[in-house]
Amino acid sequence: MNHIKIFSPATVSNVACGFDVLGFPIDSIGDEMVVSKTPNKSLTISEISGYDIPTDINKNVATIAAMELIKFLKPTCGFDLKIHKNIIPGSGIGSSGSSAAAAVYAINKLLGSPLSKKELIRFAMKGEVASSISEHADNVAPAMMGGLVMVKSVSPLNIIKLPTPSELFCFVLHPKIEVKTSQSREILPEKVSLKDTTLQVSSFGSLVHALHTEDYDLMGESIKDYLIEEHRKKFIPLFDNVKEVCLGLGSLGCSISGSGPSVFALTRGVEKAKEINASISQLYKKSGVDFSTYVSKISGTGVRVLS
Amino acid sequence: MNHIKIFSPATVSNVACGFDVLGFPIDSIGDEMVVSKTPNKSLTISEISGYDIPTDINKNVATIAAMELIKFLKPTCGFDLKIHKNIIPGSGIGSSGSSAAAAVYAINKLLGSPLSKKELIRFAMKGEVASSISEHADNVAPAMMGGLVMVKSVSPLNIIKLPTPSELFCFVLHPKIEVKTSQSREILPEKVSLKDTTLQVSSFGSLVHALHTEDYDLMGESIKDYLIEEHRKKFIPLFDNVKEVCLGLGSLGCSISGSGPSVFALTRGVEKAKEINASISQLYKKSGVDFSTYVSKISGTGVRVLS
Repeated sequence: MNHIKIFSPATVSNVACGFDVLGFPIDSIGDEMVVSKTPNKSLTISEISGYDIPTDINKNVATIAAMELIKFLKPTCGFDLKIHKNIIPGSGIGSSGSSAAAAVYAINKLLGSPLSKKELIRFAMKGEVASSISEHADNVAPAMMGGLVMVKSVSPLNIIKLPTPSELFCFVLHPKIEVKTSQSREILPEKVSLKDTTLQVSSFGSLVHALHTEDYDLMGESIKDYLIEEHRKKFIPLFDNVKEVCLGLGSLGCSISGSGPSVFALTRGVEKAKEINASISQLYKKSGVDFSTYVSKISGTGVRVLS
Repeated sequence: MNHIKIFSPATVSNVACGFDVLGFPIDSIGDEMVVSKTPNKSLTISEISGYDIPTDINKNVATIAAMELIKFLKPTCGFDLKIHKNIIPGSGIGSSGSSAAAAVYAINKLLGSPLSKKELIRFAMKGEVASSISEHADNVAPAMMGGLVMVKSVSPLNIIKLPTPSELFCFVLHPKIEVKTSQSREILPEKVSLKDTTLQVSSFGSLVHALHTEDYDLMGESIKDYLIEEHRKKFIPLFDNVKEVCLGLGSLGCSISGSGPSVFALTRGVEKAKEINASISQLYKKSGVDFSTYVSKISGTGVRVLS
């Protein structure tokens, strides 16, 4: 095998009570990448289509991650990447994580899969550092593994794949405005109340229990955020209205994806997600902001070979 | 059935990352209570043995809880309680919760069990209010239900019985000093860092996952507290030494029980718990404080009929 075509999904991270801890893939949107072996030990990006990202291999998250893997595996060949960028950078749905996961997954495959998907996460994370200063895994881990993925800790890296109930779907609204991750980080308080902390802890614990027991009612009682949303929602036009409509239509929970501006809602079944999509698409025209929406099953697959 | 003898276990609450959320019974120590039907609609305490507690039915947590249940069930008879108090009040192992659970469980049984154990919790909680000002369920719920019990919320009351792995045992050290719950509450900060909060959230989530998957290694990585212990441990002589020995001997986790002064350690298997018991019993003589220790399986039963 000398070249491979990869699909790597967008992801929702900071899943309400799972702030900094929980993420899942949006299977209906992701980056595509064709990676080819080259005879000399070089690393190149010969093509970028879709959204604009750096062509410099020292600035592109896909090649930064790739270099880390290459340093470790020491292959005798080089690699060329053709990146079709479907996810807008800065959207809050794991744009850089998707590309980083795609690159390391492709190279590992071309070398006969010496590493597992889980082992590849730490290399993909190196791409994230370039895009957001801090090393984090809550986008690359779900992009790689698929399903609901918990990052217990980054150092040492401890990734837990949680059960993904089969009827779980998501709706995602991406308002096309720029919210800088740094700005979104700065607005968070350094300290939070012990009372709200306890609510966040019990919500996340009961969400994990609900996933194991496929208890959708309990998921609905658990997918709540007590710490972050109130601070970040001010960057998102009509956030309160969007959330009210999602919950009113029976969503299991609705909050900010990543550090925004995207908003996600989880539902039981695809019909509910489609219904929410129709209503929010109508509502959001009022915001005067251009936007995209996505509906997707919470796929258990993650990054995969297309051809 | 006109009289019944009940055993109601002591309990560990505030289980490390499960502060204010998680508790379990200590099956090897608990209160005993004989409750008899009386022809007139009175409520009396005819005998108290063991440790000293109020005989006034308006001050005793067992009768306060009983009155709430009687108000709801409206029986045609009255009840008399003989209480054998094995758990010292103020020990941090759910003394009042044990008595409150015993009283409502016994009366419900004598009336033909119109309510489930879960339904009885809200009545038992009324006894807790008398002893600690605030209404909480993290002692009465595990005393009643048995096993690892999560209190998702108090209002509305939402109790979740988590899986209890069969090899899970606990060791408990009770230093016989007085630490007032109010003092132990006051020392807690109103605000905690967002960073520590995230560690607490991920630890509790991974503990719930570990219980579902019977992953003892992950339990060992998860039974940690990032918010409370550092503040309360100063009330407990030799706490750091006790914890170091417990973890050194392979405990899955060690922290403060309730609001102290008791300390618990969880282990895989009874042998490890016994080994810790022997070492700590030796060590704690140095503290100059009188103490008791307990070793117990995490029983799935909770309060029960003895005869």
